[in-house]
Amino acid sequence: MRRDEALLTVFETVERLRHYHAAAGLMGWDMQTMLPPGGVEARAETMGFFGAESQRLLTEPTFVAALERLEAEGDALAPEERRMVTVLLRDVRRLQKIPPERYRAFHVLAAKGESIWREARAENDFGAFLPVLRELIQLVREFIDYLEPAGHPYDALLDQYEPGLTVERVDALFRPLREALPRLVALAASGETPDRSFLKGRFPKEAQRALSLRLSEAIGFDHRRGRLDESAHPFTMGIEPTDVRITTRYFEDDPFSSLFSTLHEAGHGIYEQNLPTSLARYGLMAAASMSIHESQSRFYENVVGRSLAFWRYAAPIVAEQFPALAGVEPERLFRAVNVVTPSFIRVEADEVTYNLHIVLRYELEKALFAGELEAEDLPAAWNAKMEELLGLTPPDDARGVLQDVHWSSGLFGYFPSYALGNLYAAMLTEALLRDLPDFHERIERGDFAPIRAWMTEHVHAHGNRYDPPELLKRATGREPDPAPLLRYLEDKVRAVYRL
Amino acid sequence: MRRDEALLTVFETVERLRHYHAAAGLMGWDMQTMLPPGGVEARAETMGFFGAESQRLLTEPTFVAALERLEAEGDALAPEERRMVTVLLRDVRRLQKIPPERYRAFHVLAAKGESIWREARAENDFGAFLPVLRELIQLVREFIDYLEPAGHPYDALLDQYEPGLTVERVDALFRPLREALPRLVALAASGETPDRSFLKGRFPKEAQRALSLRLSEAIGFDHRRGRLDESAHPFTMGIEPTDVRITTRYFEDDPFSSLFSTLHEAGHGIYEQNLPTSLARYGLMAAASMSIHESQSRFYENVVGRSLAFWRYAAPIVAEQFPALAGVEPERLFRAVNVVTPSFIRVEADEVTYNLHIVLRYELEKALFAGELEAEDLPAAWNAKMEELLGLTPPDDARGVLQDVHWSSGLFGYFPSYALGNLYAAMLTEALLRDLPDFHERIERGDFAPIRAWMTEHVHAHGNRYDPPELLKRATGREPDPAPLLRYLEDKVRAVYRL
Repeated sequence: MRRDEALLTVFETVERLRHYHAAAGLMGWDMQTMLPPGGVEARAETMGFFGAESQRLLTEPTFVAALERLEAEGDALAPEERRMVTVLLRDVRRLQKIPPERYRAFHVLAAKGESIWREARAENDFGAFLPVLRELIQLVREFIDYLEPAGHPYDALLDQYEPGLTVERVDALFRPLREALPRLVALAASGETPDRSFLKGRFPKEAQRALSLRLSEAIGFDHRRGRLDESAHPFTMGIEPTDVRITTRYFEDDPFSSLFSTLHEAGHGIYEQNLPTSLARYGLMAAASMSIHESQSRFYENVVGRSLAFWRYAAPIVAEQFPALAGVEPERLFRAVNVVTPSFIRVEADEVTYNLHIVLRYELEKALFAGELEAEDLPAAWNAKMEELLGLTPPDDARGVLQDVHWSSGLFGYFPSYALGNLYAAMLTEALLRDLPDFHERIERGDFAPIRAWMTEHVHAHGNRYDPPELLKRATGREPDPAPLLRYLEDKVRAVYRL
Repeated sequence: MRRDEALLTVFETVERLRHYHAAAGLMGWDMQTMLPPGGVEARAETMGFFGAESQRLLTEPTFVAALERLEAEGDALAPEERRMVTVLLRDVRRLQKIPPERYRAFHVLAAKGESIWREARAENDFGAFLPVLRELIQLVREFIDYLEPAGHPYDALLDQYEPGLTVERVDALFRPLREALPRLVALAASGETPDRSFLKGRFPKEAQRALSLRLSEAIGFDHRRGRLDESAHPFTMGIEPTDVRITTRYFEDDPFSSLFSTLHEAGHGIYEQNLPTSLARYGLMAAASMSIHESQSRFYENVVGRSLAFWRYAAPIVAEQFPALAGVEPERLFRAVNVVTPSFIRVEADEVTYNLHIVLRYELEKALFAGELEAEDLPAAWNAKMEELLGLTPPDDARGVLQDVHWSSGLFGYFPSYALGNLYAAMLTEALLRDLPDFHERIERGDFAPIRAWMTEHVHAHGNRYDPPELLKRATGREPDPAPLLRYLEDKVRAVYRL
C-alpha cells in the first residue's frame, strides 16, 4: 500500500466513525431523556449494533494494514497524522483482543442498564439491579482477561478513560487526599458553621430552569449549539461541537442542586463546543481524556460556581428567579453552598468530601476487578466504606450503592476521573491565575469570556493532540500533583468557616 | 452461492438496514423537534452519510447476487421470502441507477432543507427558499433521467410512495374528484351555515396538549411506546413499533387545530405500532405504501375524528380542558369542525376542499417534472391554481406555496398519497361498517378497541406483504375507486348543512 493510499483509507474510516459516533451519541442522549419506556429493548439492540460496527470498522484488515503502514513512517508523517495513528492503533489493538459477539453483548446490556438502574433506584431495590450489574461485571472481567494488562487488572479499565493511567499512579495521587481530606473536614467542624436556613422552601422548577439557562449561557455555554434537558442523572453528550446536549434534574425543595449540576455539565459542554474542528479529519476533535473533561466540569461547577465572586455576580439574578432569596447577601449564599459535611450523595457533596466519595468507588472497583469482591457484596461493602471514609451509613441503597448511573452503563474505571478532574482543575486554576490575576474580579463582573478563552487556548483547542500529562505540562508547567487541590480546598474551608 | 447462504446474506443486510433506519429515523425526528439551530449542517452531513450507506448496502455486489440467486428460486421460496426478494430488488434496481455521490448530495440537501424552509415560511420569503428548492428539483430531475420511466417522467416519483402508481392511474382517480368536489362545495353553500362563533377565544397550549394526549390514547395510540411533541409541521416517525413519535403544533386562538393534527398523526402512529414484528427479519415490518399510511391517518382524523359520534364522546372531555366550551352541544361542535369552505392551508382544510389542495400540488408537480414549470414559477403557478380550483388567491407565500414542508425535504410525488389515502379510507370504512355495523355507537361510547382491531387485522398486520391494490382488494373486495369517498363526503355535507 502506498502512503497516500494508506492515509486516504484511514481518513475515510475516521469520517465513518465520526458519523457513527454522532448517531450513537444521539441515541444515547435520547435514551436518557426522550425514549418512551417501551422502546428500550429495540434501542439497546440498535446501540449494540452500532457498538459492534465501530469495532468492526476499527479492526477491518485493510484499515489496520493502512495504520501499520503509516506507523512505520514514523517522523515522516505530519504531527497530526502521527497522533492520529497512535490514538487509533491504541483502540485497534485493544478491540482486536475482544471477540465481536461479546463486545456487542456488552453494548446491548450497557444500553439497557440505565433504565433498569433508574427503576431500581426509584424503588430502592438493589435486587432488581443485581442481575444486570452481575452480568456487566462478568463481561468486563472477561474483557480484562482478553486485554491481559501487565500490572493490576483494574489498569485495563483506567486506561480506557485516561490512556496510560494505572492503579499505581492513582494510588500515589489519591493517598495524600485520603490522608488530608479528613483533616479538612475536622478543620471545618472547628469553625463557624454557615447559616443554611434560608435555603428551605419551595423553588419552582421553571424558575430553576430559567436560572440554569441564564447562568450556563453566562459562563460560555452556547445554547444555539446546545440544549438543556432533564434526566435522572445529569450528563453531557457532545454529538458535534455544534450540537452539545447537557442535562440536569430539579428538586423543588433545593434551590441550587440543579444549578450546580448545570454548571458542571456546562463545563463539559463548553469543552465539547470548543474542540478544534480542524482536527476532525484526524479523529482528534475529541477530549484528551475523561479526567481532563472532568477538570473542565469541576472547574466551572466549583472553582467558578462556588466562589464568592460568582455569588456576588449571581445574587441579583438569583433574586429575580427566587424572590424569597432577594434579601440574602452574596457572602451568605457563598457560605451556604460551601458547607463541608459528610453526606450520602456524591453529586451533592461539598468539594472536600466529594473526593472521599471517589476514593470509595475507586477502592470498591479495584477490589471488584481484583476478584476480591462480588456484585452481591457491593451494598454491604459500600456502607462499610462510607462508614470508614465519611463516618456515615446510608439509610437505604438508593442513597448508597444505587446512587450513580455509571455502573449500569458499564462505566467501570470512570470514577477516578472525577477526583483527577478536581486535581487538574486546581492545577489549571493556579496557571490561569498567573495569566489572569484579576480572575475573581472578572467573575464578579460577569466577564467570563477571557476565562473561557484561556481554557480554550490551553485545553479545548488541543483536542486529543496530547495525552493528559503532556497537556497539563504544557498548560501548567507541572506534573499531576494533588498539592494545588489541597491548597485550594484549605483556602476554601478557611474562607467559608471564617478561620 | 447456495440458497441457504443467499438467505443468510439477505437476512443479515435486512437487519443492518433496520438499525440504519432506526438511527436515521431518530436523527430525522430530532432534526424537526430538538436539534439546536447550530447543529443543522453537521446533522445534514451525518444524515447524508447514512442515506449513502443504505444505498451502498443495498447495491453491494454479494448482496445483489444473493437476491438474484433467490429470485431464481421462484415458488420454491416461502411466501415471506419471495415478497422480501421482490421488495428489495425493486429498491436495488432503482438505487443501482443513481450515482452514489448524487444520492448522497440529495440526502444532505434534503436534510438541510427543512430548517431553511421553516425560516423562509416564518419570514414569508420564498426567495430564501428558492435556491435549495431549485437544487432539489434539479437533483430529482436528474434521478428521473437515470431511472428512465417508461411513461410520464413523474411516474418515477409516484412509484416511490406507492409501487406501480402512474400519472395515468392517478389522473383516472382524481378526474372524478376534480369534477364532483366543486359541486359539493356549492351544495354546502346552499345549506345552513354552521355556527363557529364559540370557537373564538384563547385556548391555552397546555390544555390543548392534554386534550391531544387524552384523545390520541383513547383511539389507540400507545404513549408507552410513543411520544407526542411539537414541530413546525406535524409528522410521524416510526423508529420501531415500540418507539413511534408523533408531533403536532398549537395555535392558541384555535381549540381544535392541534387535536386534528394529533388524531391524524396518531392514525399513522397506530399503524406503525401495530406492524407485525414477525415480518421484521424479512424487512416487511413496514407500511404497504404511503397512500395506505395516509388512509390510516385520514381515517382517524376525519372518519372517526370529524364524526358526530366522536363529538358526542369527546364533548365532556373537551369541556374539562376548555371550560368556555362546556355548554356547547356535541352537534354544534360536530358542525363547527366540518364547515366546508375554500381556504388557504391544506392541513386546516375541510374534507371536501382538502382533495382540491392535493389536486393542485399534483398538477404542479406533474408540470414541474414534465419540464413545463421551473422552481421560480411556483408562487405564481400556485396562486393561479388556487384561483382555478378553490376560487381564492393566497395573500402571501406563507399561506401559499411555502405552507408545506414536503418539497424542502425532497418529497416530490408524495402529495397524491393524501387524496389516495382519503379514497382508501372511505373504501375501508365501507368494509368496516359491514363487519362492525355499530361503528358509530362504539365511537360514541369511546369503545375504539374493536375499530383499531379491525384495522390491524385488515391493514396493519400485513405490513408490507402486499402492494396497495392487493391489500385493498383483500380488505374491501374492490379495486381503488373514488365512489365511496364521494358518497361519504356527500353524506357529510348533507348532515352538516342540514340538507
